[in-house]
Amino acid sequence: MISERFEKGSKKLAEVDGQVGEEVVAPLGDLGKYIVEFAFGDIYSRDGLSLRDREIATIAMLASRSGVEPQLKVHIKAGMNVGLTTEEIEEIIIQTVPYSGFPTAINALNALKEIVVE
Amino acid sequence: MISERFEKGSKKLAEVDGQVGEEVVAPLGDLGKYIVEFAFGDIYSRDGLSLRDREIATIAMLASRSGVEPQLKVHIKAGMNVGLTTEEIEEIIIQTVPYSGFPTAINALNALKEIVVE
Amino acid sequence: MISERFEKGSKKLAEVDGQVGEEVVAPLGDLGKYIVEFAFGDIYSRDGLSLRDREIATIAMLASRSGVEPQLKVHIKAGMNVGLTTEEIEEIIIQTVPYSGFPTAINALNALKEIVVE
Amino acid sequence: MISERFEKGSKKLAEVDGQVGEEVVAPLGDLGKYIVEFAFGDIYSRDGLSLRDREIATIAMLASRSGVEPQLKVHIKAGMNVGLTTEEIEEIIIQTVPYSGFPTAINALNALKEIVVE
Amino acid sequence: MISERFEKGSKKLAEVDGQVGEEVVAPLGDLGKYIVEFAFGDIYSRDGLSLRDREIATIAMLASRSGVEPQLKVHIKAGMNVGLTTEEIEEIIIQTVPYSGFPTAINALNALKEIVVE
Amino acid sequence: MISERFEKGSKKLAEVDGQVGEEVVAPLGDLGKYIVEFAFGDIYSRDGLSLRDREIATIAMLASRSGVEPQLKVHIKAGMNVGLTTEEIEEIIIQTVPYSGFPTAINALNALKEIVVE
Repeated sequence: MISERFEKGSKKLAEVDGQVGEEVVAPLGDLGKYIVEFAFGDIYSRDGLSLRDREIATIAMLASRSGVEPQLKVHIKAGMNVGLTTEEIEEIIIQTVPYSGFPTAINALNALKEIVVE
Repeated sequence: MISERFEKGSKKLAEVDGQVGEEVVAPLGDLGKYIVEFAFGDIYSRDGLSLRDREIATIAMLASRSGVEPQLKVHIKAGMNVGLTTEEIEEIIIQTVPYSGFPTAINALNALKEIVVE
Repeated sequence: MISERFEKGSKKLAEVDGQVGEEVVAPLGDLGKYIVEFAFGDIYSRDGLSLRDREIATIAMLASRSGVEPQLKVHIKAGMNVGLTTEEIEEIIIQTVPYSGFPTAINALNALKEIVVE
Repeated sequence: MISERFEKGSKKLAEVDGQVGEEVVAPLGDLGKYIVEFAFGDIYSRDGLSLRDREIATIAMLASRSGVEPQLKVHIKAGMNVGLTTEEIEEIIIQTVPYSGFPTAINALNALKEIVVE
Repeated sequence: MISERFEKGSKKLAEVDGQVGEEVVAPLGDLGKYIVEFAFGDIYSRDGLSLRDREIATIAMLASRSGVEPQLKVHIKAGMNVGLTTEEIEEIIIQTVPYSGFPTAINALNALKEIVVE
Repeated sequence: MISERFEKGSKKLAEVDGQVGEEVVAPLGDLGKYIVEFAFGDIYSRDGLSLRDREIATIAMLASRSGVEPQLKVHIKAGMNVGLTTEEIEEIIIQTVPYSGFPTAINALNALKEIVVE
């Protein structure tokens, strides 16, 4: 039985991530269900902040950490889906430097470049 | 001798943080000089992303980490200076939950509440 | 309108944290609602792992990080509520050392000692 | 000359990790010696918490961080050795989400799936 | 019964931290014992790197993280004990900026200033 | 137009990293420019701490974190360029254990071994 939140989350996930989202989430079992229901059905579906603003926040968070490159790439693509340009995403990555230093920013910029090449 | 970058950074710092910025930076010696020159003279002064967008990124980064509450508070105030509402900042904090969990978000929300009470 | 998940989560929160849980969550607005609905209604309510096991995991996670002492204290008390002894919690903290080093373990042990004194 | 702690640690390492443990530790020189003597001879050899409980704590810590997948995999196998089922380990990973968010949990679940496939 | 490693560690702790070290370690029970035996008896007692070099490494690590200010202060004092000047410690803190950004460096510099005032 | 700081930083980068530095920085666009100007032109060019001391601090910081292995490798080579021996770098990695635990130290030691094999 699919919950109302799951359906709402699935639509939001498709809106944010395109087809990539479902591909990431499908093999994850219950963890994937919570990503759809909670992250997308509850949080991304909230009013009060545009999807573009939400992806600025998310890309900044992931770009300022290390070891979450796969998720950063998903959200770089998501950011592009909801209106961020490649140049703006590079700018978000540069904005992380005063707060998290260069190593994470270098890895994030390399993730961005891999996506642009694709 | 004050560099051109320092002057440019000082103006940008005042634009972003109001008077609070200089108070934070002044007692920090050379470290404070680099905050002005590099963080504000170089990075915040770049085109390509609005100050509002930069503060969304910065608040998200700091709210998703622990132990940097003083800096988070400075940037919550900065966010308000450059056009973010209290509700939008709460929304940014809620947006951190799927990526960093509840503990850091709770501490960030408490920081926001302390500023609103002030 | 209170969701079924919120009611389920409230009961689980009371079971895990006693009265402290509601006190922590009540002033947090929507963030508090998600703690009840998602953390307790969805996750803590799952079968497959006892509450004692869940609190071992949670105390270990929080004790191995810094800057989340308020949350660590809530979960030390929760651990005691669901069957962990003070000695076992000290043991969990000691178990963090090979993975996260001494500084976080010292801060966690001090948190435990403050709770025991209370 | 092999210390008594090293012998004690070697036995405990074999009990916890099976043959994998020694393979990981052997090429690490003095660092490997300290893993045997301190992590296993001192810490894992303590009374007061079962090996199953210690691995719940360890898997939770490593699953809630990024960039330590090789060590997480060693401890997923160790957890299985000391009595945790695949389902319980998935449950521990799901338990990390409210505290550390989805990205680290996704990477941890993928690590678990790779081990199950093997 | 006090182990040889504990005695060796106690001497090294006194050499590195002066009286402060014992005051920090004494109330920590078994955790304190491992700090003396492992951190000081095993690691700090190794040849191959001077105590001054070890404290450069340690101050840099702690200054580039948040939420471990008590431990950072102990090691700032330790650094002064083993030959680092206040200016050199400020320099180490400034050196963390390209790798970890400004917020942790600000908190570390404030810790240094509190010690200098004392 | 190349700034004076960029020229100063380029010379310092070559002194610290040899040819590797420029190869890392060149494809990074504006981010690379800031690494040269700020990290090397401003910070590494400061008096008050030798390049050897700066690399002890940097290697310790990067070895105590996970997910920044590419940057750690660059700085292991840089450390060798400015006077650190392989044995001393291993010693710095061992010194991280009491502060950050074994998993990051294992990954750092493996990075060192890969460089030595090359």
